[in-house]
Amino acid sequence: MKLYDSRLAPNPRRTRIFLAEKGITLPTEQVDIMTMQHKTPEYTAINPLQRMPALVLDDGTVITESIAICRYFEVLQPEPPLFGVGAKEIALVEMWNRRAEINFFSNVAAVFRHLHPAMKDLEVPQVPAYAEAMRPRAIWFLELLDKELAKREFIAGDRYSVADITTLVAVDFMKPSRLTMPESASNVKRWHAAVSARPSAIA
Amino acid sequence: MKLYDSRLAPNPRRTRIFLAEKGITLPTEQVDIMTMQHKTPEYTAINPLQRMPALVLDDGTVITESIAICRYFEVLQPEPPLFGVGAKEIALVEMWNRRAEINFFSNVAAVFRHLHPAMKDLEVPQVPAYAEAMRPRAIWFLELLDKELAKREFIAGDRYSVADITTLVAVDFMKPSRLTMPESASNVKRWHAAVSARPSAIA
Repeated sequence: MKLYDSRLAPNPRRTRIFLAEKGITLPTEQVDIMTMQHKTPEYTAINPLQRMPALVLDDGTVITESIAICRYFEVLQPEPPLFGVGAKEIALVEMWNRRAEINFFSNVAAVFRHLHPAMKDLEVPQVPAYAEAMRPRAIWFLELLDKELAKREFIAGDRYSVADITTLVAVDFMKPSRLTMPESASNVKRWHAAVSARPSAIA
Repeated sequence: MKLYDSRLAPNPRRTRIFLAEKGITLPTEQVDIMTMQHKTPEYTAINPLQRMPALVLDDGTVITESIAICRYFEVLQPEPPLFGVGAKEIALVEMWNRRAEINFFSNVAAVFRHLHPAMKDLEVPQVPAYAEAMRPRAIWFLELLDKELAKREFIAGDRYSVADITTLVAVDFMKPSRLTMPESASNVKRWHAAVSARPSAIA
């Protein structure tokens, strides 16, 4: 088994934090985006979508998409549960993970991809007007989340889950996207300090 | 239990097809996007993100996000399995469902949201340049998918899954987005005819 990882990109970090929470270590190979290693014929043969992470199983099966790799290990090693237990918790973790992805992570990433000079050759064409339109939506979601986190400890409930991992990675990606946490978001800041203090956060 | 649905939008259709495949019927209320019913205080109290579908459980818990609602019913009624069985199949279904969402469905939706005159008051601001940039990516994914569907019957393997539901809904949403299936995509066309012939497709 082998994990193709990329240190700078936010999605592979989701998988790394998940594996750290499970206590799983894997043989890993770095694929460097800045030198376009993900566009080589060798990597394209592994993942035609040219994105990381990718997990190659011993039988040759390739699993891509960070959350798909996480689900693979959730089935193999259910403890600690990071996708919830029972119909209702499983649904609420999925709901908050998707809300964080669709309304926050993807908008933070859009600001980075469509505005940052370093993305000029990677996001073609950059559409700055799209980044500007998504910027207030990312902040709006943090304000919504702040009200939610007044009521509970973690994003999807009283237990740390993959929804916390997605939201942590997205909050930390605000820095390269040059987005600023609203001063008033005190509950989000309390939550962010707590999840950042977990050993998995350095992954 | 009650499902808030919206006939015109593509995401609620994913949940409807999923429920039809499971043979589950639910009390349902329509929320009309065109008359802005999703922006009323009443609906905003149910889903602050003002989107459909939303499932309200008997204990008052609200589950939003079409796939989160699907997962809720997958746990309650595992047969027929639509998210896979066992670590590898579960991971591959998640991978293909996400690939179809990220690289295809979201791009088809972007073309609709940012170009269609009917979306002028719903997608503010519309960014036509973003739609134009996403249009070739949607078509590119269909070409990739055509090579995959030369090798197997369904999107994620030899069994119909939620990845087929997502892809079917996205292909059918090409029409309002004014996108055309590539003539050469014969395997996608064969697959589309087969999944469209299932009774669930009328949902």
